[in-house]
Amino acid sequence: MLKNDLLMRAAKGEFVERVPVWLMRQAGRVLPEYRATRAKAANFIEFVKNPELAAEVTIQPVHILGVDAAIIFSDILVIPEAMGLPYQMIESKGPWFEKTIKNAADIEALHIAEADDLGYVMQALQLTKKQLNNEVPLIGFCGAPWTILAYMIEGSGSKTFSKAKQFLYTQPQLAHRLLEKITASSINYLKGQVAAGADLIQLFDSWAGVLSETHFYEFSLQYMQQICDAISPLVPVTIFAKDAHYAIERIAQTSCSSIGLDWTINPHHARTQANGKTLQGNADPCLLYANETTIVKETHAMLKDFGKQNYICNLGHGLYPDLPKEHVKLFVDTVKAFTQY
Amino acid sequence: MLKNDLLMRAAKGEFVERVPVWLMRQAGRVLPEYRATRAKAANFIEFVKNPELAAEVTIQPVHILGVDAAIIFSDILVIPEAMGLPYQMIESKGPWFEKTIKNAADIEALHIAEADDLGYVMQALQLTKKQLNNEVPLIGFCGAPWTILAYMIEGSGSKTFSKAKQFLYTQPQLAHRLLEKITASSINYLKGQVAAGADLIQLFDSWAGVLSETHFYEFSLQYMQQICDAISPLVPVTIFAKDAHYAIERIAQTSCSSIGLDWTINPHHARTQANGKTLQGNADPCLLYANETTIVKETHAMLKDFGKQNYICNLGHGLYPDLPKEHVKLFVDTVKAFTQY
Repeated sequence: MLKNDLLMRAAKGEFVERVPVWLMRQAGRVLPEYRATRAKAANFIEFVKNPELAAEVTIQPVHILGVDAAIIFSDILVIPEAMGLPYQMIESKGPWFEKTIKNAADIEALHIAEADDLGYVMQALQLTKKQLNNEVPLIGFCGAPWTILAYMIEGSGSKTFSKAKQFLYTQPQLAHRLLEKITASSINYLKGQVAAGADLIQLFDSWAGVLSETHFYEFSLQYMQQICDAISPLVPVTIFAKDAHYAIERIAQTSCSSIGLDWTINPHHARTQANGKTLQGNADPCLLYANETTIVKETHAMLKDFGKQNYICNLGHGLYPDLPKEHVKLFVDTVKAFTQY
Repeated sequence: MLKNDLLMRAAKGEFVERVPVWLMRQAGRVLPEYRATRAKAANFIEFVKNPELAAEVTIQPVHILGVDAAIIFSDILVIPEAMGLPYQMIESKGPWFEKTIKNAADIEALHIAEADDLGYVMQALQLTKKQLNNEVPLIGFCGAPWTILAYMIEGSGSKTFSKAKQFLYTQPQLAHRLLEKITASSINYLKGQVAAGADLIQLFDSWAGVLSETHFYEFSLQYMQQICDAISPLVPVTIFAKDAHYAIERIAQTSCSSIGLDWTINPHHARTQANGKTLQGNADPCLLYANETTIVKETHAMLKDFGKQNYICNLGHGLYPDLPKEHVKLFVDTVKAFTQY
């Protein structure tokens, strides 16, 4: 049914004749076309909540950059909002929550989100799916429960997330209760995304890296595993736990189909840990600031290191807004043209 | 000569009857006594440049917390200042440079710092050494050349240091020229610190973690190695490359005597990589938010994991200002009382 199903085959560990490539934050400010669409909404939240605009920017990189997948334009923080904690996105500061979680009563007051609470995302997925006309797969996503908890406690971004970590150390039972509610909400949300057309799901544990190894397993991975167990019978799931360098082997033991890697991970090392599962990543986004010769050379080296099968090419993090668009395109073209594995 | 030389023996891999313990940022806001001394200076820069006040806060944790070493109170950014790039420390924002490095002319205009350019640090060390009366060793330090370059280019803290990384990708020759000048300045500075009384030197590569593995070796480790080669014939050197989880084996191949570890590193894994060198670390600072039972239990587990010999107990990062002082003291006391290795 999909005209280009390279991503789906790579995720499932099936043979591919060419490595699929997409980019985290490909629907983003790196494209002037995105910025033009973004200007039509009064603010970020309204932009996210507008299915027509969200579908428009989701499809842009498929045609402009030639990537092998679309990823629905949204934000991981729609889940806290649907559970009862609205946020604002403050220019050049990031997210900010007026109300945060402080105690058991705050947690009990939270609503377990249903897919219908996030109808605007479902509409955006349906619209995108229709407009994509089966050209490439459509990726859905949500934040990992730990990352969502971190924002709910901290109330904003943070270098250390020390308030959220303090909560884990001082109120572990409450933390688990909150993680259970976030996990239940995320499963409802992702089942809705699949019903609305998502072909693959990615879990973003953006703040895995601030946790110790034991805390990552206790407070993050077991909840991602629950989500995988609920979603992987429907569509393949990718786990991307940024900076959890020690966890590849344990992530590979979940029911996920592929493992996202940040740019500090050695591809050969990851292969020894991944138990045959598909790997995704992991170019340093800053490589795309380099000259064309360097971009091509480093991309070729990465492709050789990962090999052609069981691999989805991507960056190790999202695109930065000031990367040159033509360099981003060069990266995608280089991956698609490469044959010297 | 030193009444308590546990740190020195552990750093050199010699037998210790008890594990030495000190804490990164022990001379800091976690102590009310520090905040009282800090209030005597008009701003952070004047505080750093006042040898009497610097000596006072350097010694405080030795008596208040009972740690086995003092670390001179200063800032890694005194090196850019001595080279010609002054900085300000902006409350709740961090460091800020009016002038940054943009091109070859900016780099050529930089001065190679001599120890005399940092006379106030030398005076603070001499004063501290005298007032410490050989109770415990005195640690000197500087930033790793890559971390210093990162601030010189970026002009402030950053989540991604993408400007500094862009410089490495687009101007590698200029980056090496700048790293050479920073390295030469750092060697002069550290030789002066040793002459002024530092018993051990720690290199802080605070932003190692934003680099890819190949960039870490090319732009960071080789310069730390040059510093080690110049300083290790004089006093032991510790390398702390935060978040460079893949690099322990390569760091162990330098002439450093000990290797600092952040809290994401598994102690047993580190032992297999460190080729017998001493390890330092690595409790999660947020552990000290927990209740007393948890602090004691987790600290005991860490001590057992690292073992008694070739080990310096510390956190995996600096103390956070809002950690309870009595919990910090409990951590130190727990390490000193533990015998069940």
